[in-house]
Amino acid sequence: MKSNPSVQFCFVVLFVVGLLQACSPPAEQSTDTPLPAATDPLPSWVDGPRKQAIIAYVEEVTDSTSSSFIPVADRIATFDNDGTLWSEQPIYFQFYFALDRVQALAATHPGWKNQQPFKAVLENDMETLMQQGEKGLLEIVMATHAGTTTDEFDSLVTSWVATAQHPVKKRRFTELVYQPMLELLDFLRANDFKVFIVSGGGIEFMRPWVESVYGIPKDQVVGSSIQTEYEYNDGNPIIKRLAKIDLIDDKEGKPVGINRYIGRRPVFAAGNSDGDLQMLRWTDSNKLKTLKLYVHHTDSIREWAYDRDSPIGRFDTGLDEAKAKGWTLVDMKSDWKTIYPFEKNQ
Amino acid sequence: MKSNPSVQFCFVVLFVVGLLQACSPPAEQSTDTPLPAATDPLPSWVDGPRKQAIIAYVEEVTDSTSSSFIPVADRIATFDNDGTLWSEQPIYFQFYFALDRVQALAATHPGWKNQQPFKAVLENDMETLMQQGEKGLLEIVMATHAGTTTDEFDSLVTSWVATAQHPVKKRRFTELVYQPMLELLDFLRANDFKVFIVSGGGIEFMRPWVESVYGIPKDQVVGSSIQTEYEYNDGNPIIKRLAKIDLIDDKEGKPVGINRYIGRRPVFAAGNSDGDLQMLRWTDSNKLKTLKLYVHHTDSIREWAYDRDSPIGRFDTGLDEAKAKGWTLVDMKSDWKTIYPFEKNQ
Repeated sequence: MKSNPSVQFCFVVLFVVGLLQACSPPAEQSTDTPLPAATDPLPSWVDGPRKQAIIAYVEEVTDSTSSSFIPVADRIATFDNDGTLWSEQPIYFQFYFALDRVQALAATHPGWKNQQPFKAVLENDMETLMQQGEKGLLEIVMATHAGTTTDEFDSLVTSWVATAQHPVKKRRFTELVYQPMLELLDFLRANDFKVFIVSGGGIEFMRPWVESVYGIPKDQVVGSSIQTEYEYNDGNPIIKRLAKIDLIDDKEGKPVGINRYIGRRPVFAAGNSDGDLQMLRWTDSNKLKTLKLYVHHTDSIREWAYDRDSPIGRFDTGLDEAKAKGWTLVDMKSDWKTIYPFEKNQ
Repeated sequence: MKSNPSVQFCFVVLFVVGLLQACSPPAEQSTDTPLPAATDPLPSWVDGPRKQAIIAYVEEVTDSTSSSFIPVADRIATFDNDGTLWSEQPIYFQFYFALDRVQALAATHPGWKNQQPFKAVLENDMETLMQQGEKGLLEIVMATHAGTTTDEFDSLVTSWVATAQHPVKKRRFTELVYQPMLELLDFLRANDFKVFIVSGGGIEFMRPWVESVYGIPKDQVVGSSIQTEYEYNDGNPIIKRLAKIDLIDDKEGKPVGINRYIGRRPVFAAGNSDGDLQMLRWTDSNKLKTLKLYVHHTDSIREWAYDRDSPIGRFDTGLDEAKAKGWTLVDMKSDWKTIYPFEKNQ
């Protein structure tokens, strides 16, 4: 299924293979000789071309005597989330939230038992769910992401993130973030880069947890959104979430989202799919020296291996362009000593 | 003319009185005894109840032993721009930019000579211009703010701000910012508040100069916006500004804009009109300790005196609610020793 839907959050429903995939043991730690911890900003990165390229870039653009020096205000770094900062298999994690919300709301929506696409979700009938197409997916998103206040939605996400488990990895979803990328975020911030998430995922789905997980403030998240409305509510003002699309922050939407929220081109951008290509090109068009990082999912043991024909989306054009233009192409299997933070303690 | 239009940027066209107003000399410096400069974070504020309230608030919420302590991540401060950080008389400064753009574009739009509302602008016929209503104003905004790339628009604003002069004060517009508010921005930042502009003005009109003038990063500006579109443009990507409204960041739009861009309620908010009331109420509904500051324009000599029935908008409800609820009501004439930075050197 090589479809490439443009519905909000880019949900593509195919997770049969992934759901059945056994939990993979973490790989052995790499044995290459690390830099001393005190001087190594990226200890989970294998000391090879990618790590060297990142460190060389940061050193060059923060050196005030360099012709490539970048003033602090221009040090904007943007990171895709799904597949770049945390895993995205067997489907985007936000979709599990949506499915759990359908289950939770079913009692107050008795009609859903006989109404697609909800019937398929409630009966765990993934084959039928997959046949519902974009319209069905959009119905699920709107039914589960709209109709609350912003405060209520924040609470729902916060509760879900605290307890929900990944079906394969048997870990909370926020444990499935990439340790090397956490180090990269810290390294960039230590060098006065302002770090943003720019994701096709829902902005309000990410904000409740990105501060504690990534150290990224809520106002430095760019994502897909639905429209909202302010109500005075007799002196207890609320903001209501409406069942209307606002921004689809994917593909061409990413430069648009970057312009809307950040107002300047990034100098550093990281992605892993065709949905990130426009962001990477937009970054590449900056007159300042830039670094474009493309994460290639090559580790079938510790994470997942997928690229060109993955069921969750297309990766062809991005991968080919990263290669053709000499962008920093991260090979997860060979470049990352550790994938997830919890492996460090194993 | 007590109309209260909701067109983008809240332009209301009446500036005959203001245009004729003579340039006012700055008032004498207040003679009350100031705190030593090294310990006084707000030297241009008269040492009275408003200054004391601001300092007491900041000291209390940043004291980790206080029951009102606010964690750094929650220290969000939002400032209206027009009439709160810089002047807004005789009309919003952005409107002068729009009028100058009409003049500049006239050569390539020969039809405008016979077409309202442009004919009135070109003939400097303010009476007719005032009769064009919201539709006419929107036409001017779209003709002057859309149709370029984001880069081109940035350049246009940057050039204009560098040279355009206020018709009454005979100063560049960015000289007409309020010295006491610059000190307040600094004071809040020194105490780890993250400071945002939340303005009915155009976000892309403010971004080119707010960093140098206010020290506020481009990504910490919330404003009215038009829709944009990304184009690959044969490998030279651009973002085009479309003639379609995106967000009107005024009145009910301010809490919506705050939620969109910031993702949490402010604890500190400053405004000066009914257009700011919803932002102040939204801030007031924060469970953390808050301060709502309302600037009352009372100085007809050094700035302008206007409130309830000003031609540029309504101020009644905001002023009355500020008084009724005990918000920090700044009296510009008696609370501010200096209005504009250039007065310090006079």
